[in-house]
Amino acid sequence: MTTAHDVVAAYWAAAEARDWDAFGALLADDVVYRGPQTREQVRGRDAYVRFNAEGFAFDWHIRVQRIVGEQLRAASWIEFARPEGTQPGLCFFDLADDGRIAQITDFWPEQYELPASRAHLVERY
Amino acid sequence: MTTAHDVVAAYWAAAEARDWDAFGALLADDVVYRGPQTREQVRGRDAYVRFNAEGFAFDWHIRVQRIVGEQLRAASWIEFARPEGTQPGLCFFDLADDGRIAQITDFWPEQYELPASRAHLVERY
Repeated sequence: MTTAHDVVAAYWAAAEARDWDAFGALLADDVVYRGPQTREQVRGRDAYVRFNAEGFAFDWHIRVQRIVGEQLRAASWIEFARPEGTQPGLCFFDLADDGRIAQITDFWPEQYELPASRAHLVERY
Repeated sequence: MTTAHDVVAAYWAAAEARDWDAFGALLADDVVYRGPQTREQVRGRDAYVRFNAEGFAFDWHIRVQRIVGEQLRAASWIEFARPEGTQPGLCFFDLADDGRIAQITDFWPEQYELPASRAHLVERY
């Protein structure tokens, strides 16, 4: 049986391989992608494959840090390596009953300054 | 049996209730918290309870959007409401064999401008 964890592992492997046929085969016809930080949205398999294949026109690589799956939901934490450095990427996935990915919510946190208000409560690593 | 999903649900409920005894009871003695965006770290239950109880000196509330648990790992997506607005918070958890939380990696993504390079591939919501 293919689990949500397996589906997300295959999703990132296909992206890293630029195997857009394999990538698309993991997606529901009416997949919806959302990036809440920019409020961007992509609807439908073809548009979403194109977004991934054409939207990031630089040399990028994905290293999976963590995948957690439970029933028809999963989350992943990747490190996204690009020419200017590496950034974490965090996704939450909802799968349809047939195991294909129906919804993706994608977050890209960036570095920021430690607030002075809690600096006395932490150390740095 | 208590699952990783249940432990994380209890963690957020205790935080929202400011029930620091219940919150602390979910943590391993040597829990490690890390915020990769600032490279801040807190080690140990007492220090981590204090960080949460004292580090955010404003009126905040947590609404859980998603918890995903798998064996000794979990991820959560919350909305953190504070006076200046609501921000998503994303955590990855590792549990010790006794079910207590041993490691927390915490991300706080912020709004940013949609890059022009992919604007033709998305819509806004």
